[in-house]
Amino acid sequence: MQTDTPTVPTFADVAAAADRISSRLVRTPVMSSPALDKRADRRVVFKCENLQHGGAFKYRGALNAILPLALAGNVAAVATHSSGNHGTAVALAAKVCGLDAYVVVPRDSSRPKIANIEQAGAELIFCEPGLAAREAKLADVIARTGAHLVHPFDDARVIAGQGTAALELLTEEPGLDVVCTPVGGGGLIGGTALAAKAMAPQCRVIAAEPQGADDAYRSFRDGKRQSTTSPATIADGLRGSIGVLNFALLRSHVDDVVTVTEKEIVNAMRIVLQDLKLLIEPSSAVAVAALLAGKLGSSGQRVGIIISGGNFDLDQCPFLRGERVT
Amino acid sequence: MQTDTPTVPTFADVAAAADRISSRLVRTPVMSSPALDKRADRRVVFKCENLQHGGAFKYRGALNAILPLALAGNVAAVATHSSGNHGTAVALAAKVCGLDAYVVVPRDSSRPKIANIEQAGAELIFCEPGLAAREAKLADVIARTGAHLVHPFDDARVIAGQGTAALELLTEEPGLDVVCTPVGGGGLIGGTALAAKAMAPQCRVIAAEPQGADDAYRSFRDGKRQSTTSPATIADGLRGSIGVLNFALLRSHVDDVVTVTEKEIVNAMRIVLQDLKLLIEPSSAVAVAALLAGKLGSSGQRVGIIISGGNFDLDQCPFLRGERVT
Repeated sequence: MQTDTPTVPTFADVAAAADRISSRLVRTPVMSSPALDKRADRRVVFKCENLQHGGAFKYRGALNAILPLALAGNVAAVATHSSGNHGTAVALAAKVCGLDAYVVVPRDSSRPKIANIEQAGAELIFCEPGLAAREAKLADVIARTGAHLVHPFDDARVIAGQGTAALELLTEEPGLDVVCTPVGGGGLIGGTALAAKAMAPQCRVIAAEPQGADDAYRSFRDGKRQSTTSPATIADGLRGSIGVLNFALLRSHVDDVVTVTEKEIVNAMRIVLQDLKLLIEPSSAVAVAALLAGKLGSSGQRVGIIISGGNFDLDQCPFLRGERVT
Repeated sequence: MQTDTPTVPTFADVAAAADRISSRLVRTPVMSSPALDKRADRRVVFKCENLQHGGAFKYRGALNAILPLALAGNVAAVATHSSGNHGTAVALAAKVCGLDAYVVVPRDSSRPKIANIEQAGAELIFCEPGLAAREAKLADVIARTGAHLVHPFDDARVIAGQGTAALELLTEEPGLDVVCTPVGGGGLIGGTALAAKAMAPQCRVIAAEPQGADDAYRSFRDGKRQSTTSPATIADGLRGSIGVLNFALLRSHVDDVVTVTEKEIVNAMRIVLQDLKLLIEPSSAVAVAALLAGKLGSSGQRVGIIISGGNFDLDQCPFLRGERVT
């Protein structure tokens, strides 16, 4: 499916995105915990995008893509497919910009995520599960409505927008030895790598991925973009495969891709809740799991992790029983 | 047990405390959630003291009491009794100030809280449960060590220090119609009321208390200080009774005391986790429960809540199973 701007973005695009959207974002806090530092045997800071509008970093990329469309004035609506945070972000950004939003949603998406997208103001169009069905339905919607596509990750403006989280983090913490984000489609790690290599050349950029959806890991090692066909991971934001622009950035700007197990992901979620008092979604916990497995830098170093989101159905968590006292 | 400064503090003491300690505090974020605003049918902001050093507002009062002692140079150690956040706060503040700390801890305190106090650097002295046993053991410790008492709440410097959280909140949100904190010993509500009545005279100040430990509620209504003899609440920080100075402030500066049930407390914890992505302790959830029960202001008003702390054993939570995946 074609992207809006099919060229690989640069740091200048990230800086321009920050100028464009910062005043409309939550300046999310950078947090740390002495208890977690002790566990990890290094100094760790967390950029808390779970506290961003829509509960995820996705709002940055969506807004950076949609705001210029609205200002140009020749687009009345935007459309995307999503089972989660990107759909909510597109809906929120469209509303802020005065545009309509259509979001194609697989029927098997979780109810809370569907509710989030709807509450954010989008018109929902349901489709069968699977990428082919999603893209076919989205093409129908675009043909019918004239809406403009906002791709979840394989788009220069989206990638540049996601990079603004790292830009903020590195402005506050310029001396990081390592920065890490999870990798799914690759928008967040791509934008983060652009920011880091420009702002902190000494800083290693590491992508973290679930073993059960390790297409970026395999792609990085083989030098050839691969896909995940049967993702098996609780990290629902990372089940898709890495995009074309994103893979180009992975090769040129990222130092390593590491993987973690499902057990490590769930344990990391619990540890962040205990030590940082923050609920993070499993996709975010993938980066924390890499930290706790000793895969991010070495003892005594300074590590930055971008917490990608906090949208999670408490009832689905292995350690959250979901019992309601009524 | 005698207090350090037995006079009722004023707003000038809160302002002086802010000057003294602010540079050593976490400037905790003020957070909000559109989903929670919708539930509550009003605009609600949360001052997140669960993200303060030691995971609770208690560090403010402890530091404001201990820093002048250290600067005066005639005290080598401080002492207190605590089963929780105050003990950790005293230990941390003493360490920062270069003093030793002795904390008398009831044997039946929760293991994680005991571990917190110890990790913060205090020497622990165990005693039998109950206020009489605590005070007797603390008197022994003070006699033996020459340590200076830092009372958990019935002390003007401690109350003034706690008031700095509301001072920060009202600086950022001057137009609040209501501000609410939980009430146990009364240090937080006392300091908050001093700040609110000086900085935002239009703002109603409301204390929230568990029905199962409602001594402040009864004291406020009867005009005579009463105590809780058999507290029955999950809100472990609110099981004690209101102090002398604190009751004086409750009568002179607080507009109302409201109570909530145990079910309301647990539901409020869960809702904050879902909507704000924040883990708060049951004592903090008491104020949120009052909000959700419609007891803080009216539809459309602006409400500020001070989240007092986030120290809680996940295994003890009715909706956190505590299952570890190893």
